[in-house]
Formats: sequence, C-alpha cells, structure tokens
Amino acid sequence: MKLPAFITSHIAAIERELDRVTPPDSAQPQALHRAMRYTLLAPSKRVRAVLTLLSADVCGSSEGALPAAAAIELVHASSLILDDLPALDNADLRRGRPSNHVAHGEAMALMAAFNLFNLAFQTIARAYEPSLARQLTALVSGSVGSEGLIGGEVEDLLATESSISFEALELIHRWKTGALFVAAAVAGALTAGARQDQVAALTAYAKNLGLAFQIVDDLLDVEGDPAETGKPRMADARKTTFVSFSGVDGARELAGELCQTATGALEIFGPRAEPLRALAGFVAGRHV
Amino acid sequence: MKLPAFITSHIAAIERELDRVTPPDSAQPQALHRAMRYTLLAPSKRVRAVLTLLSADVCGSSEGALPAAAAIELVHASSLILDDLPALDNADLRRGRPSNHVAHGEAMALMAAFNLFNLAFQTIARAYEPSLARQLTALVSGSVGSEGLIGGEVEDLLATESSISFEALELIHRWKTGALFVAAAVAGALTAGARQDQVAALTAYAKNLGLAFQIVDDLLDVEGDPAETGKPRMADARKTTFVSFSGVDGARELAGELCQTATGALEIFGPRAEPLRALAGFVAGRHV
Repeated sequence: MKLPAFITSHIAAIERELDRVTPPDSAQPQALHRAMRYTLLAPSKRVRAVLTLLSADVCGSSEGALPAAAAIELVHASSLILDDLPALDNADLRRGRPSNHVAHGEAMALMAAFNLFNLAFQTIARAYEPSLARQLTALVSGSVGSEGLIGGEVEDLLATESSISFEALELIHRWKTGALFVAAAVAGALTAGARQDQVAALTAYAKNLGLAFQIVDDLLDVEGDPAETGKPRMADARKTTFVSFSGVDGARELAGELCQTATGALEIFGPRAEPLRALAGFVAGRHV
Repeated sequence: MKLPAFITSHIAAIERELDRVTPPDSAQPQALHRAMRYTLLAPSKRVRAVLTLLSADVCGSSEGALPAAAAIELVHASSLILDDLPALDNADLRRGRPSNHVAHGEAMALMAAFNLFNLAFQTIARAYEPSLARQLTALVSGSVGSEGLIGGEVEDLLATESSISFEALELIHRWKTGALFVAAAVAGALTAGARQDQVAALTAYAKNLGLAFQIVDDLLDVEGDPAETGKPRMADARKTTFVSFSGVDGARELAGELCQTATGALEIFGPRAEPLRALAGFVAGRHV
C-alpha cells in the first residue's frame, strides 16, 4: 500500500526530530546511544507519531507538535525493546532485524529501553511552556502506567497460556495498545490548543483505531508475509488473540467496524479530518 | 547508629507519601502493584528522600517537598530492581530479602521497575504547579539519563572485569550515584523557592555526599556485617571499587574528606544547616 504524501512527509519530519532529540552515537556512553538508536530509528511507519501530527493538524496546526510526537515514539520504541526480552516475548526478530537484546546484549537493551523512556519526559520538559509540559507529562505517564501500556503488558503476561474472556482480551489491548494511541492523539490536540469537544472526538477516534490496529496485528501474525512483517508467522499463536475468538474473517470484519466507528467520531471536524480518515483506512488495510 | 528525631520523622513522612502515591495491592493489576510495593516499601533509611526534605528545610520549608522526595525514592527503587536483574548484577538478595525478580519473577520485576519510574513523573505532574513541575521533570530526567543514573550504570557495565583508572571510577559514581543525590537536594531546594546561590551550595554538598556514600558502600561490601547490610560480603568484589584503589583505610579517609568538603559547602546557610551536617556525619559513619 502506497502511503499518501501527507503521511510520508510527516514520517520524514518525525524521524528528523527523533534524530535531533536523541544523543548521537559519538556521545558517551556510545554503546548506550547505539542501542537506543538501533530500535528508535529502525524503519517504521510511525503510526502513533503520525497520529499526533494529524490530530494537531485537524485542531489547527501541527507546527508545535513534533516534540510531543517524538515523545510518543520514544515511549513506543522503549516498549518494543522490553516486549522482545527473554523474560517477556523472547523474540529474536523485530522489524526484520535481530531484536535489541540479540544485537546489543540484554543489559544494554534494558538500559536503552529505560533511557528512551526517560528521554520522552525530558523531551517534553525541554520543548514546551510549563502548562503544556505538565499536561503532556500527565497524559503520557497516565497512558504508560497501571491502566496503560504497563498494566496491559502485565495482564497480557498473566493471561498467557490460560483461556480468557473476550472482555478480558479487549481490556488488555485497550491498555496495552489503545492507551498510547489515545495519548498520541490527545497530545497532538493539546499542542494545537484544541477545544474540549475536539479532544473528546479524537479520544474516541484513537481508542477505536488502536483496537483495530491490534486486531490487524493479530491477523498479520496468522496470515502476514514474514518478509513484510519482519517476524516469523504465528509468533503469537500461543496467546489468545482476536483471531482465536472470531476467526480470520470475523477479526477482519471487527477491525473494519472499529475503523468505521473511529472515523464516525470525526464528524465535528468536517472535511478537515480527511487525513485522519485516510489513516484509519491505512490501518484497516495495512500489510505490515 | 541511632538516627536523630528530625531524620526519623522525615523517614516516616516519606513512607506515608510513598504509600499514598502508589496504587494499592487491591488495584488491578494486583501482581504489578505487589511487586512495586515489595521493593519500594522495604525497610530503608531513605537517604535520598531525606536529603530532599532537609534541603527544602534549609531553604525555608519542606512543606511542599514530599511529592518531590517520593519521586526521587521511586526512581531509586526502580534502579534497585534493575540493578539486581540476572542481566546486570544477578543479585538474589536485597535489603536482606530475596530481590524483586527472585520473589516476583523477572517479567514482573521489569514491569514493576518501569512503573515505579513512570510513577515518579506522574507524581510530579500531579503535585506541582506547572512551572515547578516542568523544572522538576527536567531535573529528574537529567539525573537519570545519559550523564546520570543510566549512563553511570552503562559505564559500570562496560568497566566490569577490565581495569579502569581512578578518574573513570569517579565518573561512573558521579553519574550512577551522585547525579540522583544532586537531583534530590536541588528538588528540595526548588520546592522551597530557593535562591540560585542556595541551589549551587546544595549541589556542591550533594555531589560530594553522593560520592562519599558510594565509597562507604564499597567499604561495607568488604567489611560490613551481612546481617546488617542485607547482602553477602564481597558481592561487588569482582569490580574495581574505591577500596581496590586506596585500600580500606584510604577509602575510609577519602569518604571522610568528601563529607567535610560537603559540609564546607553549607556555610551560607549558617546554623540552619545543622541537620544536613548531621546527615553527612551519618553517611560517613553508617554501618548499613
């Protein structure tokens, strides 16, 4: 699927910003910065950070949104390193390359994950005026905590190899994937000085988009081309997924419905929300 | 060594604050919160958080310093869990009890460490007005990053089993231990609305105190009573320490000198700084 220009130009701007906020390889400790950049700057569609920029655009302008988008991407990269560790998913491949701990050793991978996460908060504190910085810090830390990324990861861990209900599975992914999608969208809205009803609309959009994204992930695990997904097929097959509940066709249908619900929430923005609608279409139809 | 009342009452207040800001065991995911509390609320002298409160006291009042002290302690607890992991120090004991990953499993220990760290930033964003919150976020993230706790940990990793210079050892501990001591003191000063010269004096004090603290740690590793230190003797003996350079007597002398330099920096505060002087005496003479 070829991405439209408004997405590819945002991706390019995000990657320049990530490069700018991260210490160079040449800075001490070099091994730490190499390990951080290895995962952070690996090829990626930057879905969450693009969501930040497009959410800012639809509320006015994405001119001030880049550091917030970078912070979201830093948190995400940190979580990818953790996810792959032997104690968690024990994955040797990520995005078609050796995962961080395979390439840099487990200790360095851990330090890189922590430092990327720390850099997210540092980036926010450096870039924004106090009131916005505090709002963004609260937003990001809320999306990471006990009812966010970490809470979802823990529930996922506890659920592995036991059978869970559809509701429990939905909770896991609302926390593990959805919370950061919502934070990404709301962060963009806040940097653009959005109104409360705009924040609410983007929250509803991102919540449904995040869940759809996760379902498509489950589908790709079952039927994706390893050359495109960058990981072996059925890597998550030991887990309960949306595909185990609904089958391939049912899961695809559910993802489509969630993307429709997502775009439905954008009505208040009118035609300005076209890029966000296109992003939902991209998520529903993505192959990698 | 019996602690004076102004320290024990601060310790009690800090522990109430840590309990208040951390989700209860009963909140979902319970296993996560149990693992967080296991390390965070284990018996401890809370040196860093006490430093925050005493620094605030000496600049005016510690009335608003408790959340900042808790944030410092949250970062510290997170780093203890990481330090003990098999990929790092592979320590089975901490403070006389099984280390976090031994008690809760490696995956849960990792999640607990991340969530404690995340909670530090959340606590700051929740407690303080925007301008102070942004200052504290920048301060804490700076003390954790590439030239702080994480950078020091990485340099320490790289130095293990190779011989390093005294200067390299000092850099490791200035980053790994000193940076958070400095952040602890400056955080207290900021919450009390300190003047620039007060911040500078406390920075000099904390920098020297942190290094002294580390040297005493090295001494305790060699000659401490395992029943009091809570870990086996010579656990760090494979590493280059201040004792390997200066011997036991030389290291003790160096720690004493650093504590003197530390208290020397407090002159501008006059007699108000007595508790900070007592804290330095406690660090120089501590047995656990």
